[in-house]
Amino acid sequence: MKKDYMSDASVVIHEPCNIYGKPLLRRNVSIGAFTEIGPKVEIGVGTRIQGGCFIPEGVTIGSDCFIGPHVCFTNVKHPMKDGKFTDSGNYDRTRVGADVVIGANATICPGVTLGDGCIIAAGAVVTKSVKAGQTVAGNPAQPMKEK
Amino acid sequence: MKKDYMSDASVVIHEPCNIYGKPLLRRNVSIGAFTEIGPKVEIGVGTRIQGGCFIPEGVTIGSDCFIGPHVCFTNVKHPMKDGKFTDSGNYDRTRVGADVVIGANATICPGVTLGDGCIIAAGAVVTKSVKAGQTVAGNPAQPMKEK
Amino acid sequence: MKKDYMSDASVVIHEPCNIYGKPLLRRNVSIGAFTEIGPKVEIGVGTRIQGGCFIPEGVTIGSDCFIGPHVCFTNVKHPMKDGKFTDSGNYDRTRVGADVVIGANATICPGVTLGDGCIIAAGAVVTKSVKAGQTVAGNPAQPMKEK
Repeated sequence: MKKDYMSDASVVIHEPCNIYGKPLLRRNVSIGAFTEIGPKVEIGVGTRIQGGCFIPEGVTIGSDCFIGPHVCFTNVKHPMKDGKFTDSGNYDRTRVGADVVIGANATICPGVTLGDGCIIAAGAVVTKSVKAGQTVAGNPAQPMKEK
Repeated sequence: MKKDYMSDASVVIHEPCNIYGKPLLRRNVSIGAFTEIGPKVEIGVGTRIQGGCFIPEGVTIGSDCFIGPHVCFTNVKHPMKDGKFTDSGNYDRTRVGADVVIGANATICPGVTLGDGCIIAAGAVVTKSVKAGQTVAGNPAQPMKEK
Repeated sequence: MKKDYMSDASVVIHEPCNIYGKPLLRRNVSIGAFTEIGPKVEIGVGTRIQGGCFIPEGVTIGSDCFIGPHVCFTNVKHPMKDGKFTDSGNYDRTRVGADVVIGANATICPGVTLGDGCIIAAGAVVTKSVKAGQTVAGNPAQPMKEK
């Protein structure tokens, strides 16, 4: 398995898991098995990432977040243009605030910002930014009232 | 890979696959690759679990079920409360009956019951219990007529 | 890991990845980690498959496609009938044309055809065939206007 990241001994990683290109995993981060993390990703203090997630280059996640199992981030709106693949490095930035909860199997489209303390319901497909404290659900994800 | 479960020689497990904390896999269960199964899970006789599934603590699955590829179960509605992560062991129970079919990439929210012989369509996000024999689809999953 | 396929040295496969039963991977195909590919699959020249995909027997993919992370194909509408599992080999055919883009975590139901140059949005659940050049999104996937 690939294990190439910057961190300290407080980080817990469950195998197998691929981490490429020296992302920054801050103190007390934990990462579930069958997860991939790409270059230049940053993950904040105490954030927990469950199994089977995909976090490519261009994603920044704040502190104390819960990223549920099978959550899939993305980094390019149009991976092909005029018959050519988008070049590596030309990525949209996705920013996740602090204290964010992302439910299982959610899909986060490229270039969105998820505000502090927002909640993304399980299975949601997030196509635009979510305000701090807001809860969204569905495909495409829409604001919902907390029950 | 972690392989810590109770069963007999009739069980087939495709590697790599992580099984934690001695779940009970009954006779003739088969488990696809890249799947994770957690503690105290129970899986009934003859049930087939495809690749890339996530089945955490708190889930019980009956006999002769088909669990499609990438199906994602969950076990806690609110993984964070007042800034703290929910403690391990304090999980919602999800119960899957016998002869249930769960389509590919479906997401099962915590605490639901899926009745005997029900069908969950591919990609469905199941937020509440499903009656025996019922077919549900969509996000959130709703009853549908069989075609 | 299982690695049983037909190809040449131009193919790039990221580990871990399971490839079963000699599928045909044409020139310059790349395959992401945690992906499974089944028997008799064919993947066209230059197609890129991201991490965590599931591509079972019965799927044919054309050239120069982009298959996003966690995309899940399927091959049988009714995996159980009269209490018996559908026999291996009795699969629906799914055909993906050339220059197709499939977004992250999309689910492709069995037996559909995705026409040349069509775009499947991230998280879409594709239940019927998509015309060449068309963009679809949602659950179930519906045609959308490009923005």
